[in-house]
Amino acid sequence: MYIIMAEFTHFNAQGESHMVDVTVKHITQRQAVARGQIFMEKETLEKIYDSQIAKGNVLEVARLAGIMAAKQTQHLIPLCHPLLISSVEIHFTREQQSIMIEAAVRVSGQTGVEMEAMTAVSVTALTIYDMCKAIDRSMVIANICLMKKEGGKSGLFERKDDSCLPK
Amino acid sequence: MYIIMAEFTHFNAQGESHMVDVTVKHITQRQAVARGQIFMEKETLEKIYDSQIAKGNVLEVARLAGIMAAKQTQHLIPLCHPLLISSVEIHFTREQQSIMIEAAVRVSGQTGVEMEAMTAVSVTALTIYDMCKAIDRSMVIANICLMKKEGGKSGLFERKDDSCLPK
Amino acid sequence: MYIIMAEFTHFNAQGESHMVDVTVKHITQRQAVARGQIFMEKETLEKIYDSQIAKGNVLEVARLAGIMAAKQTQHLIPLCHPLLISSVEIHFTREQQSIMIEAAVRVSGQTGVEMEAMTAVSVTALTIYDMCKAIDRSMVIANICLMKKEGGKSGLFERKDDSCLPK
Amino acid sequence: MYIIMAEFTHFNAQGESHMVDVTVKHITQRQAVARGQIFMEKETLEKIYDSQIAKGNVLEVARLAGIMAAKQTQHLIPLCHPLLISSVEIHFTREQQSIMIEAAVRVSGQTGVEMEAMTAVSVTALTIYDMCKAIDRSMVIANICLMKKEGGKSGLFERKDDSCLPK
Amino acid sequence: MYIIMAEFTHFNAQGESHMVDVTVKHITQRQAVARGQIFMEKETLEKIYDSQIAKGNVLEVARLAGIMAAKQTQHLIPLCHPLLISSVEIHFTREQQSIMIEAAVRVSGQTGVEMEAMTAVSVTALTIYDMCKAIDRSMVIANICLMKKEGGKSGLFERKDDSCLPK
Amino acid sequence: MYIIMAEFTHFNAQGESHMVDVTVKHITQRQAVARGQIFMEKETLEKIYDSQIAKGNVLEVARLAGIMAAKQTQHLIPLCHPLLISSVEIHFTREQQSIMIEAAVRVSGQTGVEMEAMTAVSVTALTIYDMCKAIDRSMVIANICLMKKEGGKSGLFERKDDSCLPK
Repeated sequence: MYIIMAEFTHFNAQGESHMVDVTVKHITQRQAVARGQIFMEKETLEKIYDSQIAKGNVLEVARLAGIMAAKQTQHLIPLCHPLLISSVEIHFTREQQSIMIEAAVRVSGQTGVEMEAMTAVSVTALTIYDMCKAIDRSMVIANICLMKKEGGKSGLFERKDDSCLPK
Repeated sequence: MYIIMAEFTHFNAQGESHMVDVTVKHITQRQAVARGQIFMEKETLEKIYDSQIAKGNVLEVARLAGIMAAKQTQHLIPLCHPLLISSVEIHFTREQQSIMIEAAVRVSGQTGVEMEAMTAVSVTALTIYDMCKAIDRSMVIANICLMKKEGGKSGLFERKDDSCLPK
Repeated sequence: MYIIMAEFTHFNAQGESHMVDVTVKHITQRQAVARGQIFMEKETLEKIYDSQIAKGNVLEVARLAGIMAAKQTQHLIPLCHPLLISSVEIHFTREQQSIMIEAAVRVSGQTGVEMEAMTAVSVTALTIYDMCKAIDRSMVIANICLMKKEGGKSGLFERKDDSCLPK
Repeated sequence: MYIIMAEFTHFNAQGESHMVDVTVKHITQRQAVARGQIFMEKETLEKIYDSQIAKGNVLEVARLAGIMAAKQTQHLIPLCHPLLISSVEIHFTREQQSIMIEAAVRVSGQTGVEMEAMTAVSVTALTIYDMCKAIDRSMVIANICLMKKEGGKSGLFERKDDSCLPK
Repeated sequence: MYIIMAEFTHFNAQGESHMVDVTVKHITQRQAVARGQIFMEKETLEKIYDSQIAKGNVLEVARLAGIMAAKQTQHLIPLCHPLLISSVEIHFTREQQSIMIEAAVRVSGQTGVEMEAMTAVSVTALTIYDMCKAIDRSMVIANICLMKKEGGKSGLFERKDDSCLPK
Repeated sequence: MYIIMAEFTHFNAQGESHMVDVTVKHITQRQAVARGQIFMEKETLEKIYDSQIAKGNVLEVARLAGIMAAKQTQHLIPLCHPLLISSVEIHFTREQQSIMIEAAVRVSGQTGVEMEAMTAVSVTALTIYDMCKAIDRSMVIANICLMKKEGGKSGLFERKDDSCLPK
């Protein structure tokens, strides 16, 4: 809980949107890890994992979409700074009724890569939805959140709640 | 439940990805409605709604990002068809601990706009996250799903579960 | 002068931005012509025209930039509809202290191409500025306006003031 | 006036276009400020300022478009270098018959941000035009020019003529 | 051989580039098939095919890049018309010392998709190069050509020389 | 020939695609030179060179397309890193039945610019094809390869076979 809430950094004193000035910030190594899940029918989940080898690899298509989207973050999120991201990894974990997506993004830059990691997870999930929607329109993308953030002036952030579920 | 699961439409018989052929499909009016929520601290929620007039309108920035992202869907989702979307509306509902985002997209085209609506919701939510992350890094984007889809050969889809929560 | 001013079409009744619904509008042939000028030192102007053949064609680079920008209009102007523009022509006229740029854009579509023509003129002018800025930083881009618009429900618009100067 | 005019930097000795080599230039802090105006009917001007709170904020939409366009400059202006812009601010001043737009862009980079500032002003103006064109098609975008440029080898440039009017 | 050569369609009578006017052309179903090869060391070729299942599928990454590039054609090739491509298929054939890439693109539109097919082949080949360059920098992309083109006023084109080798 | 082939760098140990981590690599000056040819009818070749001055400059349009494409490389090649390229030069050499295209790209960055140079050559060739296809559909793009690469940990690469022909 906050006693005195900070102002929104993306607005100036007049309440006008701007791209925050990071001109004088140091270039440091930064990393962010984000997560999300896509829930689906058990049959859909089985089909994704069973089809990987002979019938088409849904997850590999989604992974590439996520990596490419990370590079588009500055053009999707209006007030994001451009950054030269230097690494993107996307991993999938099969769960009971969902696929857990985790994206880790790194950079040597003047500002962090939280949005790049969050965007990578989101577009990966959207692509899984697209690939499977003809057989399961009821899939739900959920629990997208930042797990960890390192580097830069604001230092380390680590989400304690490992499950990422909304409270 | 499906007795015989359909194949993934985005792979051909050899399991290779392709853009599904819609060349001979008729141009019809189509609509899709998607939803999602972003959960946050109550103080963050209050701040977003209290600041709208004098201190910066988070939701209007997010709405524009969502509309512009709908137009980028074909470049974000690898196997999506290009479409000339003819309408995008994004609405917000203030809830207890979250903001509900609803996007409605329309088109006169050869294929549907589910992905455009889902993408609009996702990028709207990501932008809210970006605008507020300096004061609340623990926000969670959740329950993104298709609510409704009309037009085209596959006809009407309506999600019965109004809450969009993963089962 | 307007007795009763129309509402802004890009906002709904609640003052929220949206992409205007053109789903049911007919596909008709539409055209728009826009103009603008870039003012510069006489020496710069001479240099542009003298160098065309042997030392580099500033105007041809600018023309291509303008044509390509017309195709990006939907991604630059937030609430613009995507359109399949079917023709772009950009012409230059040498004047006393300026170059007059005129762009004509055509489409068979559900909405007009004013913004595509205005964007083409603007980016053409910006590119001339970029090409010449090392020798003349004081150039001024001016008098960008819509000259003519044909087709669609709102019918013909023709600017009477041929010079395009602000009143 | 120039006794011996410099060559166009964007063409090589053979008159062929190229992206100027800045590989060995130092990374320094650079800033550019550009300006422009959009002239309109007084009623349109009043409507923009009166509608801001309840009926839709034209200027905030335009501001975001300008900021996002600054990030697209390298893809709009053919021979521009890519840059990691680190700050964008866009301000509006209400005048008698126009809105004055001023954009300030900063970077730590190998080359300057004049084009980013000029592009931000242009796309901001185009978006105001788009938002208002249904009620006033005769608006004129004018007097776009560079006001100031700091940093880098060529040093400080400051426009003396504050009004930015073409001579 | 041509007795009287036609003019370049992408320039007008004054030798200025333009986007050819197709406003009044009929919407018809059109298809284009293009081909190309990427030559490499036998060990590289073996590695690509042996690694597909367990160690990473080079060809599937390249295929997706090709499909996505087809959708970017209008922004890569300056005077290309935007089109709503309705199908893209990319196939690979393993040859002695190369991989043959074939792309088929379809559209219902006012102009053809040759450039989309040629672009898909090119970017597919470039991506194979990128994926393998750390182990074989000497790969050569060759023999990219149009094999077939159907639909539209100019009718059927079929390349007789099946091998696509330069004469 | 390789006794022990290296693994594909774009896949991790599990065979999953990723963007290789270059976060800790030093920023050094790097350069890459790529080449390619476009073969055509002699009449087409003559027409391109004869028309340059009065009837339209095919090669200048293609050159600009190549330069602009170099800046898009990161969005075309899925696993490429974003880079701030600092120089692009594209040269043409008239040959018997072809035009030789050479692109040189430079950067101060954490990774090399081979793909930027290869992409520049490819899109330059595709644009020549597009500009001339109405008079010669049988053109063939061939022999695209890396000629030279300097800078960075892997050091100098120089292609011995000057002709770039596939073996």
